Amino acid sequence: MKNILIASTSTIHGSGYLEYLLEELETFFKSASSILFIPYARPSGISHDDYTKKASEAFSKINKKVIGIHTYENTSEAVEKAEAIFVGGGNTFVLVNQLYKNNLITALSDAVRNGTPYLGTSAGSNICGLTMNTTNDMPIVQPPSFKTLGFVPFNINPHYLDPDLNSTHKGETRETRIKEFHAFNSQPVVGLREGSWLEVKGKTITLKGKLTARIFEQNKNPFEMEPETLLNDLK
Amino acid sequence: MKNILIASTSTIHGSGYLEYLLEELETFFKSASSILFIPYARPSGISHDDYTKKASEAFSKINKKVIGIHTYENTSEAVEKAEAIFVGGGNTFVLVNQLYKNNLITALSDAVRNGTPYLGTSAGSNICGLTMNTTNDMPIVQPPSFKTLGFVPFNINPHYLDPDLNSTHKGETRETRIKEFHAFNSQPVVGLREGSWLEVKGKTITLKGKLTARIFEQNKNPFEMEPETLLNDLK
Repeated sequence: MKNILIASTSTIHGSGYLEYLLEELETFFKSASSILFIPYARPSGISHDDYTKKASEAFSKINKKVIGIHTYENTSEAVEKAEAIFVGGGNTFVLVNQLYKNNLITALSDAVRNGTPYLGTSAGSNICGLTMNTTNDMPIVQPPSFKTLGFVPFNINPHYLDPDLNSTHKGETRETRIKEFHAFNSQPVVGLREGSWLEVKGKTITLKGKLTARIFEQNKNPFEMEPETLLNDLK
Repeated sequence: MKNILIASTSTIHGSGYLEYLLEELETFFKSASSILFIPYARPSGISHDDYTKKASEAFSKINKKVIGIHTYENTSEAVEKAEAIFVGGGNTFVLVNQLYKNNLITALSDAVRNGTPYLGTSAGSNICGLTMNTTNDMPIVQPPSFKTLGFVPFNINPHYLDPDLNSTHKGETRETRIKEFHAFNSQPVVGLREGSWLEVKGKTITLKGKLTARIFEQNKNPFEMEPETLLNDLK
């Protein structure tokens, strides 16, 4: 049974790395003593070692050991044998490129569909959707495909941001970008605000956190969804 | 001799489409009575016809006729024979995908290197750089390659935006994104603020407009460049 936590962000304003989620994660990872960390998204170009250290420090507070996947010779086997998996944020293009390069798409799909708990934040959440086409990241490398893990039958837009009505900047708003996405793609998009997450337990998908999420479907007006609402029918 | 105008944006706050540039464009396009418009980037998913109409309306003020490339059977020939070319903004992924699909990369390169005046705004400016890896756009379609026209020996980041120091949002700042780009790529990036443009005359590249531009080079601290500075040595 799938057991997944898809978080908009690792960090909310005024709080430490993963701090706002830690209580939730204690329950989520209760059956695991160690967590396999996938640091490939490398926020700000941080090294795999340094990023793993950062994750370790956060998880030490709930007595979990964190091991970086880059320390394994056989990364597919590491995924297969992991007690739990955490894919951190950073650049989604870099993350997806590295997952394809290391042939990890199938290994991750299999492990998570077999019940290995999976936590994603930001880029690590993006890849839980059908494709990475609704990432906010800069395309700094070119992955072989934009197809991602499809743990949920829609796309994720993490760090969802409402239009700033006072802005004088002419770059596209997030809503406009997602509207453009729907000129070429039919799957729904869930705009997850910072502090929100999706909980996936088997076939049940629930919006968690204190904020509403914004749901975008092709040829429909976007709407707000309240916390604790089920998203099982969104596809 | 190359004759190119690479604008950060088509529109600045409080002014109409292309309005702030119109005087400049009258000189820039003085030898052309008609302009071939490439509407492929489709901002907000607008149709090719509607986008061409918008460009026509702006250029009618300086007595230029605008013809959309989508109205030609043979688009390469249309580029080859064009008196002048304008590539409008929108989504860079959609634009680049369509240019590859229609085999227009070589036709555009040849025409512009032979002296056909080229105006790009936003996505149309992004593609003047070596690659589209520093676009701000959402990857809503997957082009076969991120390689672009390379009219200048660096990358462009249009709509360059300074970090908002009061923001509580945890998405990456533009500067962080470009730093991440330089973890994987070596070419410089020119952050062009809205209202700025680069003028390319043969081998001379000049920053125009009233604002400074922010220059990012790998393993160096970014710096500001004043208007009227030459960028000939940036590579």
